[in-house]
Amino acid sequence: MHTSPFETNLDQCAANYTALSPISYLERSAFVYPNKIATVNGDVRRTWKETLGRCRQLASALTKVGVKKGEAVSIIASNLPEHFEAHFGVPMTGAILNSINTRLDASAVAFILQHAEAKVFLVDKEFGELATAALGMLDEKPLVIGIDDASYDEGVMIGEMDYEAFIATGDAEYKGEPVTDEWNAITLNYTSGTTGDPKGVVYHHRGAYLNAASNALSWSMEMHPVYLWTLPMFHCNGWCFPWTIAAQAGVSVSLRHVRADKIYELIKAEKVGYFCGAPIVLNLLNSADESMKAGINHKVKVMTAGAAPPAAVIAGMEAMGFDVTHVYGLTETYGPCAICAWNDEWDDKSAAEKAILKARQGVRAPMLEGMVVMDPETMELVPKDGETMGEIFMQGNLVMKGYLKNPTTTEKAFKGGWFASGDLAVWHEDGYVQIKDRSKDIIISGGENISSIEVEGVLYAHPHIQEAAVVAKNDDKWGETPCAFVTLKEGAPDVSEAEVIEFCREHMAKFKSPKNVVFGPLPKTSTGKIQKFILREQANAL
Amino acid sequence: MHTSPFETNLDQCAANYTALSPISYLERSAFVYPNKIATVNGDVRRTWKETLGRCRQLASALTKVGVKKGEAVSIIASNLPEHFEAHFGVPMTGAILNSINTRLDASAVAFILQHAEAKVFLVDKEFGELATAALGMLDEKPLVIGIDDASYDEGVMIGEMDYEAFIATGDAEYKGEPVTDEWNAITLNYTSGTTGDPKGVVYHHRGAYLNAASNALSWSMEMHPVYLWTLPMFHCNGWCFPWTIAAQAGVSVSLRHVRADKIYELIKAEKVGYFCGAPIVLNLLNSADESMKAGINHKVKVMTAGAAPPAAVIAGMEAMGFDVTHVYGLTETYGPCAICAWNDEWDDKSAAEKAILKARQGVRAPMLEGMVVMDPETMELVPKDGETMGEIFMQGNLVMKGYLKNPTTTEKAFKGGWFASGDLAVWHEDGYVQIKDRSKDIIISGGENISSIEVEGVLYAHPHIQEAAVVAKNDDKWGETPCAFVTLKEGAPDVSEAEVIEFCREHMAKFKSPKNVVFGPLPKTSTGKIQKFILREQANAL
Repeated sequence: MHTSPFETNLDQCAANYTALSPISYLERSAFVYPNKIATVNGDVRRTWKETLGRCRQLASALTKVGVKKGEAVSIIASNLPEHFEAHFGVPMTGAILNSINTRLDASAVAFILQHAEAKVFLVDKEFGELATAALGMLDEKPLVIGIDDASYDEGVMIGEMDYEAFIATGDAEYKGEPVTDEWNAITLNYTSGTTGDPKGVVYHHRGAYLNAASNALSWSMEMHPVYLWTLPMFHCNGWCFPWTIAAQAGVSVSLRHVRADKIYELIKAEKVGYFCGAPIVLNLLNSADESMKAGINHKVKVMTAGAAPPAAVIAGMEAMGFDVTHVYGLTETYGPCAICAWNDEWDDKSAAEKAILKARQGVRAPMLEGMVVMDPETMELVPKDGETMGEIFMQGNLVMKGYLKNPTTTEKAFKGGWFASGDLAVWHEDGYVQIKDRSKDIIISGGENISSIEVEGVLYAHPHIQEAAVVAKNDDKWGETPCAFVTLKEGAPDVSEAEVIEFCREHMAKFKSPKNVVFGPLPKTSTGKIQKFILREQANAL
Repeated sequence: MHTSPFETNLDQCAANYTALSPISYLERSAFVYPNKIATVNGDVRRTWKETLGRCRQLASALTKVGVKKGEAVSIIASNLPEHFEAHFGVPMTGAILNSINTRLDASAVAFILQHAEAKVFLVDKEFGELATAALGMLDEKPLVIGIDDASYDEGVMIGEMDYEAFIATGDAEYKGEPVTDEWNAITLNYTSGTTGDPKGVVYHHRGAYLNAASNALSWSMEMHPVYLWTLPMFHCNGWCFPWTIAAQAGVSVSLRHVRADKIYELIKAEKVGYFCGAPIVLNLLNSADESMKAGINHKVKVMTAGAAPPAAVIAGMEAMGFDVTHVYGLTETYGPCAICAWNDEWDDKSAAEKAILKARQGVRAPMLEGMVVMDPETMELVPKDGETMGEIFMQGNLVMKGYLKNPTTTEKAFKGGWFASGDLAVWHEDGYVQIKDRSKDIIISGGENISSIEVEGVLYAHPHIQEAAVVAKNDDKWGETPCAFVTLKEGAPDVSEAEVIEFCREHMAKFKSPKNVVFGPLPKTSTGKIQKFILREQANAL
């Protein structure tokens, strides 16, 4: 075989090849802009140089307590600077950051800590009680480090020591474990999943590096963006924005609770230029008191994803002068991997028409390689007619490494060389994808995925319930809420809607509990499958 | 050995791994913005969809004439749309694009065609005569395809057929040879060869993809940038801007000859927002007639590199409202891999101080991994004192794959895990690098190092001097002395050698002042660099 001279004696070496890792962005920003502000939390402001030092201290401290390459470090925290730092300090050791959804119940948190085999658990005091309950369910407990927050009066500090004392044991000059393979894991994010137990989605350094850049390109971000944390950092690592902010030497502005007054206050005080959120966040801001909205004189860019945002909400935000970009993705794709890229051929359309165009999920992001709509049975592309339904499939470097300790599900998700999103959509003539129906089992409430199967599991645990089916009900505030349809066991006493809801709230996270419960026979196919599409219609007619 | 669950059953597959290649940017822009203009050459405008079709036709046609993966296709052309297309169409086949410097002589072109083992040679009619002479020197000739240009009346069309007829044999639906390994070669660029035979610098798909993104991030580029080709595309593949423009779905505006009137005309007519060039291009624009400059009402961003731009030229451009970014790199680093990133702590400085800060070479670009100043003997970092001289070394994904068929020189260039730039520099306290000289351009007089760049800086400050170059002249007493070669501005009064020397002695240490001053045109390389080796010979013949 003839070997090309272009592939001979031209190998990778230390001079010309470095594994892609977002840690590089932090190091660069600390070097080039040491005195620029990196994080803001109330009165606490830290520069990029300080932030790098603290990340290195965290990494060093973790190493000193025995955390090793390939092990997990979990965190449950609001969008604090410490949470931001963990996105760099943990991977610097070669360990994997597992940021846990703060809205889960104790048993779900316990499941995750156990499944991830977390060696250290960083706990924001707001979630001290929840974490204590979760830890109580574990045989092998991780080392617990509490995170205090001077700007927050409530909560319970727990753990062996607090974060400041912990990182004080570390060395600010520690260089970390070199990333030798960009395919190595960087973070672990649990989905609520469509099938019961949450799945652990593993991201790698390469994907995190590329999606951070892809975010900046998608948004045509200026240098030094001021970014407000309306989106939880536990959500697909804040859609990879901790790494994007580092790449752009921006400012990470903390926000503990999503409240309109606080958001508007920070937008004005910190001159926030960018934030992300589910449509519910936009809705909240849109419907806020006019007095809060007054006084914003700079450009604000908003990225939204989750359920398809109602066109009216987009139009309302734009009327306020906010520039809304609609993006789309899943936990399995590092958050948004698609963007409803604006096309200036649409500039002359009416505001209503523009909002409808913008409500579509769009096209692949700059650094995703492929997004198509195919018939999931035949794996053939559906026609671009805006009508034929198919499933969205993705391909490329913004698709997860796979599910942790779950080769069967990983293999299934990647069948045929594409990642199956589970989202049903049409393909428009211009190549833009529009979701018509979420995969049947998923309910998206306030930006969070709820597995109907999980809710049904709780319902089925009720002593008097015979059958249960849970579907999404459209909701102005939350996007969707779970609506339960149940039949009672023969001879069971009367059970009220309120009693069923209360039962669910006792056994799972409150946000997952049904908001409505309907009693009566369930429509079924001839083979006995419950016809959820009929229930969905019924739910929306309530 | 314990294997981490994060590295088990989580392998790369078609769904989650795609080799990085800038061809992906073209495909995306043609998909998302099919009707947006991609290339402009006089009256000829083509959309992204048309451009993708033509690139695929070129790839298909090349395949049909037998071009195979790992072979070279050469081109000698001005900055035409066809040259832009070749940056995609050639690599689509798995072949390597070799863009040849149009200012070389026939024997140098012949050397390159032979060394690259070019299978096809695309020849813009402006260079038909040159190409014919070069081909005459070859035993084995490539297939020659002529490129016509309706907007250009001169030149000689040569070849088997013309470009349009050639690509008409190709298939616009051809999908190309998939890039299976991002380390595979994409282009081949020959250095100007100031030290013997030119060296063939090999770029790979990964580096081209990353530098294209790094360019967009460095420049905070908006979507759809209108980019004017003042920089030759043969120069480090136009600093990778063909790929950046594709990533941003911008407009590639052709420019055959660098002339101030044409440049200003296109800036106004096409609303050009971005262009690159050596300081000599800025100088040309800066010293152009005021009437040409009038009427630019939009923001224009300029990237400059090459020789250190005199602070006066930067200040002049900024006074015109152009935003100048100074970048730095070599053929071996895909063009610019460093940027004099602006720091807003400098906003309050005087224009003169700002220009001095901006004239420094700066810091690593977003996607380079390392740039340091080290003692080349000990490989120890020099102190950041702005005084201690060392050599600039780079590391990371924007460093070439190596030199073609030249393992010895490749190994030498990568010794110690860093790429040795050959540029001598100091490191300032803020981490910014400033070049003091090429290692071979330093003048050692009476044991003292004299930076030729420093002496040139003083000469450029003389009111009547247009261009200046300083080299070492052998001297029995001092070893070497500085010898200056200068040209005077148009319409300047006569200036004597003694006057120039006196001017220098007033503005710098006497031992650094030139002992000789020669008036007259300066010999330049094809890329516009002053050929100091010729001046050195002239100096020693005085």
